[in-house]
Amino acid sequence: MRELGVEAIADIAAGAAVLGTGGGGNPYIGRLLVEQAIRRHGPVTVVDIDEVPPDAFIIPTAEIGAPTVSGEKPPSGDEGLAALAAIEQVLGQRATHTVSIEAGGMNSLIPLATAAARHLPVVDGDGMGRAFPEVQMVLFTVAGVSATPLSLADEKGNTLVVDAIDNRWAERFARTATVQMGCRAMMAPYAMSGEQLARGIVPGTLTLCEELGRLLRATRLAHEDPVAAVTEKLDGRRLFDGKVVDVERRTLGGFARGTARIDGSGPDADHELTLHFQNENLLAEIDGEAIACTPDLIIVLDREHGSPITTETLRYGCRVSVVGAPADPRWHTPEGLALVGPEVFGYDVKIAPLAVTHA
Amino acid sequence: MRELGVEAIADIAAGAAVLGTGGGGNPYIGRLLVEQAIRRHGPVTVVDIDEVPPDAFIIPTAEIGAPTVSGEKPPSGDEGLAALAAIEQVLGQRATHTVSIEAGGMNSLIPLATAAARHLPVVDGDGMGRAFPEVQMVLFTVAGVSATPLSLADEKGNTLVVDAIDNRWAERFARTATVQMGCRAMMAPYAMSGEQLARGIVPGTLTLCEELGRLLRATRLAHEDPVAAVTEKLDGRRLFDGKVVDVERRTLGGFARGTARIDGSGPDADHELTLHFQNENLLAEIDGEAIACTPDLIIVLDREHGSPITTETLRYGCRVSVVGAPADPRWHTPEGLALVGPEVFGYDVKIAPLAVTHA
Repeated sequence: MRELGVEAIADIAAGAAVLGTGGGGNPYIGRLLVEQAIRRHGPVTVVDIDEVPPDAFIIPTAEIGAPTVSGEKPPSGDEGLAALAAIEQVLGQRATHTVSIEAGGMNSLIPLATAAARHLPVVDGDGMGRAFPEVQMVLFTVAGVSATPLSLADEKGNTLVVDAIDNRWAERFARTATVQMGCRAMMAPYAMSGEQLARGIVPGTLTLCEELGRLLRATRLAHEDPVAAVTEKLDGRRLFDGKVVDVERRTLGGFARGTARIDGSGPDADHELTLHFQNENLLAEIDGEAIACTPDLIIVLDREHGSPITTETLRYGCRVSVVGAPADPRWHTPEGLALVGPEVFGYDVKIAPLAVTHA
Repeated sequence: MRELGVEAIADIAAGAAVLGTGGGGNPYIGRLLVEQAIRRHGPVTVVDIDEVPPDAFIIPTAEIGAPTVSGEKPPSGDEGLAALAAIEQVLGQRATHTVSIEAGGMNSLIPLATAAARHLPVVDGDGMGRAFPEVQMVLFTVAGVSATPLSLADEKGNTLVVDAIDNRWAERFARTATVQMGCRAMMAPYAMSGEQLARGIVPGTLTLCEELGRLLRATRLAHEDPVAAVTEKLDGRRLFDGKVVDVERRTLGGFARGTARIDGSGPDADHELTLHFQNENLLAEIDGEAIACTPDLIIVLDREHGSPITTETLRYGCRVSVVGAPADPRWHTPEGLALVGPEVFGYDVKIAPLAVTHA
């Protein structure tokens, strides 16, 4: 058990955006939201998963929608609390903890704001070890936890509670309602027991986010290479260096979807990397050949100062390094791949996991 | 208070489809559903609005979606009960009565099936005195009753509870979820007290449906004119006689939308009536000039045997009489017109209410 004060939040937000692999929301807005909540309500207590009793009642909170919209319509902080309260009302039980369902600039941070406002401990970890675009794409699904009852709340005061037959149906209802809510809403999915949480969590990712953020800051200050430091920390591999020369991006069906083309430089000169994303970076191809793909992490960092660049802020001229890092091994099981493998997103790609090619 | 047995249902269904003005669902399926429920669970108790105590707790049940789909995917009867139960769970209170929110081939009948299965009395009346296509288009909205919490249930076992800031938002969320549910779902909207029900109800429409159905049957047997009898009963006016020569109909946004052209015969020879509908018949024009429009009732009847023809069953060759009848006067108030007037549906039409032109 430890306490998080305002001073830790900038590092967590930066590190979370690294694990967000282009998605998971805007770290700057996430940071402002939590700093404000901590200033108003006091520091946040962080507990490890082995400190959570099996009969604890955990309600995660998260943002859902297109990050392109979230930047223009940042949450007030109240929507997450409304979503949480809706689940408490339906289940007639108050949350004992909250947790992040995905690592990301917003979605690692939202639970901290919820935790501060509601004086709930937050569990160190998340449900993916990275970010993925859809509700069912969490290890909790693999562990047999239901996403529903799932609540949604918007900034206008509308709330919605979904009770679906499976987690894919939960995604369908949540997504279409989010589009009506203006393409961005707060949700409370996967209300669960401590025992269920322990089965699905990727432990320690909140601490990992903080360490990644600190590493970026320290290497930058020491004039070292922040990209190399992050790559090493994640046991990853630098895939490509270059300049973004084209971004095609649409807000479609409640997601930011598109591709970016990166013109190689240095050792990658005369090559081109194409990045395909749906909120998150899902597939990287060099000269038309797949080099990394979901479920492994594809991370775009500013080549100079190492800051993670999310898919909604990618733009012409960014000098970037593209880094690959191995996903939690559970994502490479048949059950994991059935949820987030390349073919789920329509990519006809067969490549070995990064952990294997890397070894 | 009276009891309804199986023998009354065919008349009610036929009469309800008259008041449904082309919408409100398929009377044949509605009839089968209720006859089955009564055979299984026993007769239904019908009470008048002045028999309902002010502190009664009424939960209406209704079909929502495109009637074009409902005919292909008829409800099992369980969805309405699931929707009702979801509201009872959210509000922690069991229904004492149920009621119809709109008159129509399905939506006058669904509450009878619910009433039979749950042994609840059904209140004689409905929220429109006809059918309209959207959730907020009921006199309960004019009376200040909230449509939410509103629940939806589909045949797969998904349920959804909406808590919206107003009844138009309730419609948005309910409609988009219905599209996901396959364009047809059961809902329980407008849970309310006896006092609220009394403020919004059009009393006696269940009895009126039965009388209309009986009238159709009796005149047909006596070789009299069923169209004339229905027209007189509703204080209406025969607008046009002819043959359907063209129907353009799409299932769009969770509605059956389109137009039908009717080629005049008899005194209407050499004239053409165009009917515009969104589930319900909303505007009738003769040779391009508006002759009747929402909120007044525009009813299409088979010219020979007087059977009401719903918009999803209109087809080339139908010999029809188009009848206009005055709507409940509350629909012609500024508050009523703001909900269901011609401009709400995009028609730039200014004509006097039928009750006035008729007088």
